[in-house]
Amino acid sequence: MEPQPMNGGDGPTSYSRNSSHQRAGVSAATAFIQDGIAEELELGVALHNNVYSTVRNSFAIADLGCSVGPNTFLAVEAILEAVRLKYGPALPQFHVFFNDQVGNDFNTLFRSLPPDAGYFAAGVAGSFHRRLFPKSSIHFVHSSYSIQWLSRVPKEVRDRENSASWNKGRIIYTGAPREVWTAYAAQYAEDLRSFLQARAEEVVFGGLMALLFPFSQSGNSSKDSPLSRLFTLLGSTLMDMAKKGHEVEEEKVDSFNLPIYIPSMTEFKGLVEENGYFSVVRTEALPPPVSSAAKEVFARAVSMSMRAGTEGMLSDHFGSQVVDDLFEKYEKKIVDSSGLLEINPTGEAAELFVLLKRKTLAIN
Amino acid sequence: MEPQPMNGGDGPTSYSRNSSHQRAGVSAATAFIQDGIAEELELGVALHNNVYSTVRNSFAIADLGCSVGPNTFLAVEAILEAVRLKYGPALPQFHVFFNDQVGNDFNTLFRSLPPDAGYFAAGVAGSFHRRLFPKSSIHFVHSSYSIQWLSRVPKEVRDRENSASWNKGRIIYTGAPREVWTAYAAQYAEDLRSFLQARAEEVVFGGLMALLFPFSQSGNSSKDSPLSRLFTLLGSTLMDMAKKGHEVEEEKVDSFNLPIYIPSMTEFKGLVEENGYFSVVRTEALPPPVSSAAKEVFARAVSMSMRAGTEGMLSDHFGSQVVDDLFEKYEKKIVDSSGLLEINPTGEAAELFVLLKRKTLAIN
Repeated sequence: MEPQPMNGGDGPTSYSRNSSHQRAGVSAATAFIQDGIAEELELGVALHNNVYSTVRNSFAIADLGCSVGPNTFLAVEAILEAVRLKYGPALPQFHVFFNDQVGNDFNTLFRSLPPDAGYFAAGVAGSFHRRLFPKSSIHFVHSSYSIQWLSRVPKEVRDRENSASWNKGRIIYTGAPREVWTAYAAQYAEDLRSFLQARAEEVVFGGLMALLFPFSQSGNSSKDSPLSRLFTLLGSTLMDMAKKGHEVEEEKVDSFNLPIYIPSMTEFKGLVEENGYFSVVRTEALPPPVSSAAKEVFARAVSMSMRAGTEGMLSDHFGSQVVDDLFEKYEKKIVDSSGLLEINPTGEAAELFVLLKRKTLAIN
Repeated sequence: MEPQPMNGGDGPTSYSRNSSHQRAGVSAATAFIQDGIAEELELGVALHNNVYSTVRNSFAIADLGCSVGPNTFLAVEAILEAVRLKYGPALPQFHVFFNDQVGNDFNTLFRSLPPDAGYFAAGVAGSFHRRLFPKSSIHFVHSSYSIQWLSRVPKEVRDRENSASWNKGRIIYTGAPREVWTAYAAQYAEDLRSFLQARAEEVVFGGLMALLFPFSQSGNSSKDSPLSRLFTLLGSTLMDMAKKGHEVEEEKVDSFNLPIYIPSMTEFKGLVEENGYFSVVRTEALPPPVSSAAKEVFARAVSMSMRAGTEGMLSDHFGSQVVDDLFEKYEKKIVDSSGLLEINPTGEAAELFVLLKRKTLAIN
């Protein structure tokens, strides 16, 4: 199981119409991004001598894991505003690269580009675990709600022969034996290493990288995070369907695992330090947005948002005919379950904003 | 009527499966492109001092009007080979921008990108009659079979009130009164001016632009070109359908015009000279490919190729239900018509390859 893009198009189950949670997070991060640009962006040679204005005319921004909008456009606009504010009329032109996996719906993305956006836009298809851009060509990287996706499900958890790490009856590592956690954490480490190395090669000295992703505040693998509890509930909905003899076979649930991992702050920072090419210049733990909606409305929004993000993978594995039924049951389960009300009872921070700055340090 | 992209996807009526004529032209132009790079590419400052290797790391290629492949990949590969051959191991990385209209099927394009292509690819959606890239950021522009498309149908030819320029009963200017030709030629001039000005701003000094497009060798508006005769035949197929009371209304044919213009070499070169930022360094008139296929096979290929390029516009105007029938009749008409065999009886050159070089001349 490889990760798949968010649902394309702009229909009722599309990501573009079911990403208001992510939009709230992107908005919350905007202020940090703008402060960060004001205080930390240093493009040295590039901005302060003729080289910049004659040879290198554009300020390049990459949004990695952009999906189909509109959130990506809001984030990019915030970055542009802050750079304009900082550099004033000496401003270069902006070149904005929207990246997502090859299967992403770029046709919808391009059709939704704001007219007269004030930048030159380009789409880049491919995994951000590999190089996407020429060396030292990007000034600002932005990525929201993307780097929690793994490049693949760790193979140990699909291995029936190895009973210790086989993730039977679950679709994510929460509630699983330690071996399952370990396999997921190792895959995350491998993927984040690749991600950081590729970006170290692409981002200019003094350039910035703003990352927003779900994290586990407890930093304790025996506890889970608000988001992982929602995935666990989705897994148990699938198991309910299997037990009741619905279209889902229990074996199919056993062999399905989501390629997602929610790290602790310590894990993440440790990998940044190990990479060595970026300094962490700002960290903000964000509380989850509080919903004042009736629980039925909230449950529907959560279910639709989850569907927009996982439908491709679920359809591939279980067949598209189970999807409507699954998310209807999931929605009811969120409403019914006392678990819902306890998704984040203590108001613990659920998302981490991190601003990294590319050190002036050449790669051998 | 605005121009519309070639048919997307990779089904039986797709451009990707019905563009072998264009592929032959692209192949023929490859040798000229490679010679041109060897003899004419001069990137001065950019390639010969440190600025290039530290600040500006990539050689940027833009293919304008790329459609969905595979022709665009062949052209880009030829350019890469020639640049590699010229600059050897001092070579920078390549950044390749694939451009077409917003409605182009970029999803198919991205899925068809050659793996390990040896360049970083990006898609750029938008009209090439406007700016697509930051100032002085492109080293090589390529565009095949694209700049003959106008940004719109000249409005005079749709004007029923003005009987002189109204293009009644035809879908292109051939065989029409002089006023229709004049309106088309004026639109072409306006569009090529915009195209050249945008490219003058984007292409670095010494950078190259390779253009391949159908042209009229006679350079005489009273004569037509092989391609325009094929369009004329399509128009008369529509008129046949209208006269026979088929699904097509005659009024609809009157109000349909293709936004395409096939210039003479003099017209084209005059506009390049007027723009002033490019020198014409090479011109090659290419004979049309000779088909050894049986006339039925040839007729089918021509009909499918025409369909891949015009189906979007025809469906919008006449309704998609007429398209199958239209192209079946068109194919028969090509076979039956003695006109087919006379499409290019004298073997006159039908396509023009032009290599332009950006002068070292700043834009005020």
